[in-house]
Amino acid sequence: MGPHPAVAAIRLAVRRVLHDILTEQTAERPREHVTIGRPPHERPSAPLVLVACSGGADSMALASALAFEAPKLGISAGGITVDHGLQPGSDLRAAEVVLRLRGLGLDPVESVAVTVGRGGGPEAAARDARYAALDAAADRHGATAILLGHTRDDQAETVLLGLARGSGTRSLSGMAAVSGSGGRYRRPFLHIDRQTARKACMTQSLPVWDDPHNTDPAYTRSRLRHEGLPALEKALGKGVVEALARTAQLSRDDADALDAWASQAEASVRDASGLLECAKLYALPPAVRRRILRRAAIEAGAPAGSLFARHIEEVDRLITGWRGQGAINLPGKVVAQRQGGRLVIRQG
Amino acid sequence: MGPHPAVAAIRLAVRRVLHDILTEQTAERPREHVTIGRPPHERPSAPLVLVACSGGADSMALASALAFEAPKLGISAGGITVDHGLQPGSDLRAAEVVLRLRGLGLDPVESVAVTVGRGGGPEAAARDARYAALDAAADRHGATAILLGHTRDDQAETVLLGLARGSGTRSLSGMAAVSGSGGRYRRPFLHIDRQTARKACMTQSLPVWDDPHNTDPAYTRSRLRHEGLPALEKALGKGVVEALARTAQLSRDDADALDAWASQAEASVRDASGLLECAKLYALPPAVRRRILRRAAIEAGAPAGSLFARHIEEVDRLITGWRGQGAINLPGKVVAQRQGGRLVIRQG
Repeated sequence: MGPHPAVAAIRLAVRRVLHDILTEQTAERPREHVTIGRPPHERPSAPLVLVACSGGADSMALASALAFEAPKLGISAGGITVDHGLQPGSDLRAAEVVLRLRGLGLDPVESVAVTVGRGGGPEAAARDARYAALDAAADRHGATAILLGHTRDDQAETVLLGLARGSGTRSLSGMAAVSGSGGRYRRPFLHIDRQTARKACMTQSLPVWDDPHNTDPAYTRSRLRHEGLPALEKALGKGVVEALARTAQLSRDDADALDAWASQAEASVRDASGLLECAKLYALPPAVRRRILRRAAIEAGAPAGSLFARHIEEVDRLITGWRGQGAINLPGKVVAQRQGGRLVIRQG
Repeated sequence: MGPHPAVAAIRLAVRRVLHDILTEQTAERPREHVTIGRPPHERPSAPLVLVACSGGADSMALASALAFEAPKLGISAGGITVDHGLQPGSDLRAAEVVLRLRGLGLDPVESVAVTVGRGGGPEAAARDARYAALDAAADRHGATAILLGHTRDDQAETVLLGLARGSGTRSLSGMAAVSGSGGRYRRPFLHIDRQTARKACMTQSLPVWDDPHNTDPAYTRSRLRHEGLPALEKALGKGVVEALARTAQLSRDDADALDAWASQAEASVRDASGLLECAKLYALPPAVRRRILRRAAIEAGAPAGSLFARHIEEVDRLITGWRGQGAINLPGKVVAQRQGGRLVIRQG
């Protein structure tokens, strides 16, 4: 008898990602290693893959699948747990997660304490601190990749959070399966639902820890998870989470294609001195033109996070609705104005 | 003292659309009319704009604004109400709406009875019957345009309904401000919220009719309006409706640009005999390639409404994950298969 279907599903998801990592490593390895023909015992040591684990069901399931699959592919598997220091006793919990990860056979296993700042709200600050710690841990251990336990449900929530920003296709594209510098972060569970991860822990008798933050209505994501999404499912039907996750993938592909187009078109709409020519911008589709305007504003010093669709629309009207309007102020003291058929965007 | 802000807002919205209609008409008028130089009294008769009015607050507000603005621009204004025959006494209500529209000074005003079929669910069937009747009425009266009372709230709901389909950027683009053959349908209120329309009716002492369907939980849109969206607003904040409406506009522009790209690229990936070349398709961004595949499937006879993202993904794997797999069955008995580096999509 094979493993429980939930366990089979999480293992398959991890196996696929480990396989991708190995394939990419082989492709990237310098050619001379192959042509010199080293004997097998001199091959570089096994790649190390780490799992980022909070002790919750999603990441414990991920850790268990990594511990099971990695050895079969000649991969070393370790784990990192981040102690955010936001709740009393978080250090003890982190120590417990370390023990559980060691219990799965992972090695190295480490707990990293971080200090959470205040930038961009509590959730963003915790996330920034966490990724910085994970990056440092990966460097320290020479890890090839770090697996993250985000599920399809997390992805659906992320799409809704992006929808609430109303800033278009890129903000609807959720989390990437591969991200970070050199594609270091991998999310094997983006197609696995939370329920499956939980079931996989149960059938493997893995104790899991429920983060009280996840049910605290002070957090937007928690409200979304426990009130917003269930209400949406009640109105629209059970397929909403899957539809949102699929929207993420389709939006990501669309945003990538349009960014590529804008990047290519940008060169063709600049004059000899590098200024944007309004007539040439006018001829582009609005979606491409606005992306070029956004890029130009960011290049001039406008902070991407403060640059909203309405800013770009106003700059766009210098092209499409020109009636002699004055300079437009953008975040980061950037000013956009039309001068003699050229668009000048610079820090004022 | 000027009008109430809500009344000012709806009038401005209608004025802008009427202005657009006049501008387009002037641009389209054959040149000889200008060069022959007819005297003013021989100019073609005033264009006619109709409002589609259910008697609800949105379309009654629209009717009142049209009645106020049209004469000032030399436009004739009329109204149509559609009797769907779905509720007892709907004919009496339609007759009452006719009286109210006449009371606003609209002329011609007409009630049109339709028979609602059963295709695609009750909401889709009612919509199909309604637009067919409006099209016929516009032809009969020689109307230049028909105004529809959809508000920003309707737009937000439409985006969420599209999101639930999970079929990507086009399905998130909601309703167009201009649609129908020759741009006949116009939606002046897509940036006006429902509350403003209602307030405009109140301050003008216009009686409005509340369609019981709008609060009937048997209808998806009604559940969304009364449960889904409020819960989402509670979780994400009050700006959700605005964010959804902005998403519609951005998604529409993105979808248009990508459709244009796909349409252009399609010619370049076909060989001399018109077959799709896999190697050339492979080189395109996934978002563009999948649009070409979708177009090809529809051209071969697959019904657009039954062709889902998962179908196109499977066809796409013939290009990106080729391992000798067999023919793929698509809706409408269309078959896609790879043959000697070419993709053949045809009715089987």
